[in-house]
Amino acid sequence: MAAVQDGTVPSSTTVNKTAHPFDKVRLDALLNRRFFYAPAFEIYGGVAGLYDYGPPGSSLQANIIAEWRKHFIIEENMLEVDTTIMTPAPVFETSGHVARFADWMVKDVKTGDVLRADHLVKNVLEARLAGDKEARGLAAAPPTDDKKKKKKAVKTAAVALSDEVVAEYENILAQLDNYSGPEIGQLCKKHNIRNPDTDNEVGEPQLFNLMFASSIGPTGQHPGFLRPETAQGHFLNFSRLLEFNNGRLPFASAQIGRSFRNEISPRAGLLRVREFTMAEIEHYVDPEDKRHERFNEVRDVKLSLLDRHVQEAGKSTITEMTVGEAVDKGIIANETLGYFVARIYLFLVKIGINPQRLRFRQHMANEMAHYATDCWDAEIHNSTGWTECVGCADRAAYDLTVHSNKTGHPLVVRQALKEPIVTEKEVPEWNKKTLGKTFKQDAGVIQKIVESMEEDQLVKLKGQLAQGKAVVASPEGKEFEITPEILTIERKTIKQSIREYTPNVIEPSFGLGRILYTLLEHSFWSREQDVERGVLSLPPVVAPTKVLVVPLSAREEFDPLVKEVSSKLRRAGVFSRVDDSNTSIGKRYARNDELGTPFGVTLDFASVQNRTMTLRERDTTDQRIGPIDEVIAVVTELVFGNITWEEACQRLPAYDGVQAVDS
Amino acid sequence: MAAVQDGTVPSSTTVNKTAHPFDKVRLDALLNRRFFYAPAFEIYGGVAGLYDYGPPGSSLQANIIAEWRKHFIIEENMLEVDTTIMTPAPVFETSGHVARFADWMVKDVKTGDVLRADHLVKNVLEARLAGDKEARGLAAAPPTDDKKKKKKAVKTAAVALSDEVVAEYENILAQLDNYSGPEIGQLCKKHNIRNPDTDNEVGEPQLFNLMFASSIGPTGQHPGFLRPETAQGHFLNFSRLLEFNNGRLPFASAQIGRSFRNEISPRAGLLRVREFTMAEIEHYVDPEDKRHERFNEVRDVKLSLLDRHVQEAGKSTITEMTVGEAVDKGIIANETLGYFVARIYLFLVKIGINPQRLRFRQHMANEMAHYATDCWDAEIHNSTGWTECVGCADRAAYDLTVHSNKTGHPLVVRQALKEPIVTEKEVPEWNKKTLGKTFKQDAGVIQKIVESMEEDQLVKLKGQLAQGKAVVASPEGKEFEITPEILTIERKTIKQSIREYTPNVIEPSFGLGRILYTLLEHSFWSREQDVERGVLSLPPVVAPTKVLVVPLSAREEFDPLVKEVSSKLRRAGVFSRVDDSNTSIGKRYARNDELGTPFGVTLDFASVQNRTMTLRERDTTDQRIGPIDEVIAVVTELVFGNITWEEACQRLPAYDGVQAVDS
Repeated sequence: MAAVQDGTVPSSTTVNKTAHPFDKVRLDALLNRRFFYAPAFEIYGGVAGLYDYGPPGSSLQANIIAEWRKHFIIEENMLEVDTTIMTPAPVFETSGHVARFADWMVKDVKTGDVLRADHLVKNVLEARLAGDKEARGLAAAPPTDDKKKKKKAVKTAAVALSDEVVAEYENILAQLDNYSGPEIGQLCKKHNIRNPDTDNEVGEPQLFNLMFASSIGPTGQHPGFLRPETAQGHFLNFSRLLEFNNGRLPFASAQIGRSFRNEISPRAGLLRVREFTMAEIEHYVDPEDKRHERFNEVRDVKLSLLDRHVQEAGKSTITEMTVGEAVDKGIIANETLGYFVARIYLFLVKIGINPQRLRFRQHMANEMAHYATDCWDAEIHNSTGWTECVGCADRAAYDLTVHSNKTGHPLVVRQALKEPIVTEKEVPEWNKKTLGKTFKQDAGVIQKIVESMEEDQLVKLKGQLAQGKAVVASPEGKEFEITPEILTIERKTIKQSIREYTPNVIEPSFGLGRILYTLLEHSFWSREQDVERGVLSLPPVVAPTKVLVVPLSAREEFDPLVKEVSSKLRRAGVFSRVDDSNTSIGKRYARNDELGTPFGVTLDFASVQNRTMTLRERDTTDQRIGPIDEVIAVVTELVFGNITWEEACQRLPAYDGVQAVDS
Repeated sequence: MAAVQDGTVPSSTTVNKTAHPFDKVRLDALLNRRFFYAPAFEIYGGVAGLYDYGPPGSSLQANIIAEWRKHFIIEENMLEVDTTIMTPAPVFETSGHVARFADWMVKDVKTGDVLRADHLVKNVLEARLAGDKEARGLAAAPPTDDKKKKKKAVKTAAVALSDEVVAEYENILAQLDNYSGPEIGQLCKKHNIRNPDTDNEVGEPQLFNLMFASSIGPTGQHPGFLRPETAQGHFLNFSRLLEFNNGRLPFASAQIGRSFRNEISPRAGLLRVREFTMAEIEHYVDPEDKRHERFNEVRDVKLSLLDRHVQEAGKSTITEMTVGEAVDKGIIANETLGYFVARIYLFLVKIGINPQRLRFRQHMANEMAHYATDCWDAEIHNSTGWTECVGCADRAAYDLTVHSNKTGHPLVVRQALKEPIVTEKEVPEWNKKTLGKTFKQDAGVIQKIVESMEEDQLVKLKGQLAQGKAVVASPEGKEFEITPEILTIERKTIKQSIREYTPNVIEPSFGLGRILYTLLEHSFWSREQDVERGVLSLPPVVAPTKVLVVPLSAREEFDPLVKEVSSKLRRAGVFSRVDDSNTSIGKRYARNDELGTPFGVTLDFASVQNRTMTLRERDTTDQRIGPIDEVIAVVTELVFGNITWEEACQRLPAYDGVQAVDS
């Protein structure tokens, strides 16, 4: 209370997180030093596109997953599944992945180096545009002194381009995802795009399938692939899931798991990798009713949208509107798609993504995956530009239909109609005995002809029969004369009480590694007084460690208190770590600022004597003091998001100890 | 309180879980019907050894993992990692897996069918022993009427064997894991063991490597394997992990993730699969000090042990003793190994494994994996016999040493010694100028010879130099005469303050699918009054759903209460599901008994009028009643294990409603 009564301004107002410009080199160094993640098999020289997560990276990922499970699976009673990664080839032949899950690659005609075709065009044209800007005197100096980065960046002389060429390049870049392979090949020729590493020409674009292949069993007879998405595992189990859900629609299945894509030349850290953890939802919905029961709960969520028409016009103008407005105007196709777009937004913001750097971009027609009819990507802005982190696709009935057709196992919903659909219909009725006796082996043919007739043909036939006889012709021209003794046609009322249909699928699909990396970028800053002191302002909900317990030293007299505080925090469900290493408290806090630990408690001689403890907040470095149990109660509420730091300051007075331990 | 004051006996005493013998066919049918798991790609005909988990199986697995994380990672501050599955070939060449991670297979000489050699011997000999028992009139009738199973089981006529042959077969079976491939081939010849499906002979055993192979990148130049264990991912990151732990030992890394083994002929459901989730711990320890700080906490845990000497004598006699005793007697090699064996025991019992059906079996010498020096398996008894579910191996310094040697990257600990080790040593000191001038290009050779001398040689040389000159001979026999002007040798005191060593690794490794399946067997029983009414008595800590919310019907008037109760349970952290399907309350409870849901609450007209709710316990079908909020409070404490059902009964009176809804 003291602080508030004193009129002290909470020091959070004094934190300046933008005192230093964002520095990717510093962030990368921090993530490597603190082992958030590192190249896999580093001591073997590493392999592009494979990364291992260390303790803070693993915890951050586990916390993001736990929050995802809560936000989606538990909140909406989704049916979780866990299906295999290894998949026999026929599944991906049916799904279209064997034929179409591929990227265009080009080979350097001299070295044979392989490059992804669209990335090559992007890198070269962007470099030329940058060179043009520099020549026109518009370019800023390179923001960092990262030597490695400079080496890898495409070097292009500062050459001015004509306004026309600039416009053409910009137009190409705005719809790069819209070009086919041969079109990219033409672009390379027309604009003399070469391998920037060697300045050699590149050959014609070729398709490269992105699935890792293997073979199942000892005889090598069963080719298999590592799944490139978890989705097929959901679809193949659709009938079981529907039954589990008591036959009712809509419902959703959800899965968190590894997927694999054999990327052509992965380079961008966690943003483009060959093995990654996904979280996917397949929401099954009646194609004739894509409303969503809970749409009203998200109707007012405001989104930044970039629709396909804007992009196809070569622009990238963002429109801000509520999801309700977007659905009403038909920009987002239906409520269910809109509902998930909004829920994705809410999830990303909750875990710490900056909403100012989050937009939803609609796929252009040629860009769409082969199974999708509409798709909105959640793109998060970071130092490499806008990156797709979540896809939200309407896969329509594509997957269920192709698997159904291939296997003969119907993946459909049978819905009992509340009101049966009543129709009137002409129905042929046979005297089978007479039919057989009269026509022998032709009886079946005749039956088939009549029963495949349209309504108007049946009416005509009925008229003829009323006259005493009728002639029925086979497709080969053979004619049969039939009489009312053999066939009568009557108008009947048909009641249809079951409707059978293939559901449509709305699929929100999350790339967790990309989200994790962009979150780290959005969370990173350096203290105003010292650029070397990096901080990751991760929200408590995802921070790897919630509370750091810091005894003044590793001396035995602090042990009982350290154990008491740790065990009380554990019982309260708060994950803490002890740092009793042999270094100053300030250094220990600085190290944990880099790990994103939001709170710290210090145990010193006063703690032993008076059972008090200080509480430090990471971003402000503000310190409060109180009785040990009260501090534990306050920090627990902070971690679970029940109170803000300002409210905590009203419960714990400022710490004005002589030993300022920090900053 | 009423119940207790009335002197009512808690009805749990009346539950008879063994009224019907265990029936695997019924359990399998239940697991399939309720979609705990099912063969993957079932609609494509399935692939042996690949299974998908449905909603209850996924939840059960997720809950087991959550408890594992709490019991091991959080409780002991382990460092979690998440490393890649795809692994470049050189890693497994170094680790020995390319050469030695293989099983012996035999081919049917006529059909080419492939069988795992040791399994073939086991199946045939066990069938013969069963036939012998039957012939002697000792055999029980087959316990089930499972036609499929009968078809697959090895058919053997009821032929009596001599006592000698019986003893020989039993001896072979007791140490089957101890035979090499060629030895198994001899067994097949000697005992005329043939493919039971065809009665054809089988060829010589051949090694089949169990790793799935693939290739990384577009050029196919980088062969890779899917990891068969997560362990290598830990070891390759050892230096980073050690640094993260401030350079201190002991510590442990932990990882939960998928691994793959291309089993030769997987048949036993979840017990032998080609893709599975593991949880592995690598605990790094000083090879000279394998004590464990917390050993005293587990010293009195009583274990069933089957050591290697007993097995090598062809026996399987279990010894019961505390882990303290086992370590004291040297049966378990050291405290750290013993500590983890006990912690594994405590974990398995906590999640519901029957301790009477849990034993620890030590590996025999020939059976051990190529990297292990000692290994104890936690084996869980189930309908197929004893199954290895957790391995606890001492991998010694094997892995860190081989990777270190291969890569040149030292995977070692550098420990600052509290007391430096002081030694005296003869140290050669050169006058480099004179040495060079005198011997020119031979100078280096001479230096090398002298500096590689043992202590006694140096003393001898020193004596010669004291006489004025000495002769040094190269390995090729060339001699050099050196003088005290060139070389002096002095006795010096050397202080060593850093000790460098390669840690040993103790590895508890959990196969989660096997644990999950045996847990389901241990939990399954049928109600005494009706064998068709199966129950899974899963402990609340792992049960997929903790509380079932059952409104009397789907009528709208119950909606507000259903929502209120669901949301209050969610806020209390209790996972519940609503079943408002159109069937009787009794049937809904029966369905959820099959899903292992421990508690149910019913909302009826009394709930609407009086805000009361009944609470039902799964195993006893006992029902209590109380105000809604009190029932929520009680069930929350039940779910978190804070109170027993008997204690709950003291807080909520028995329900004697006219509408008995159950049993």
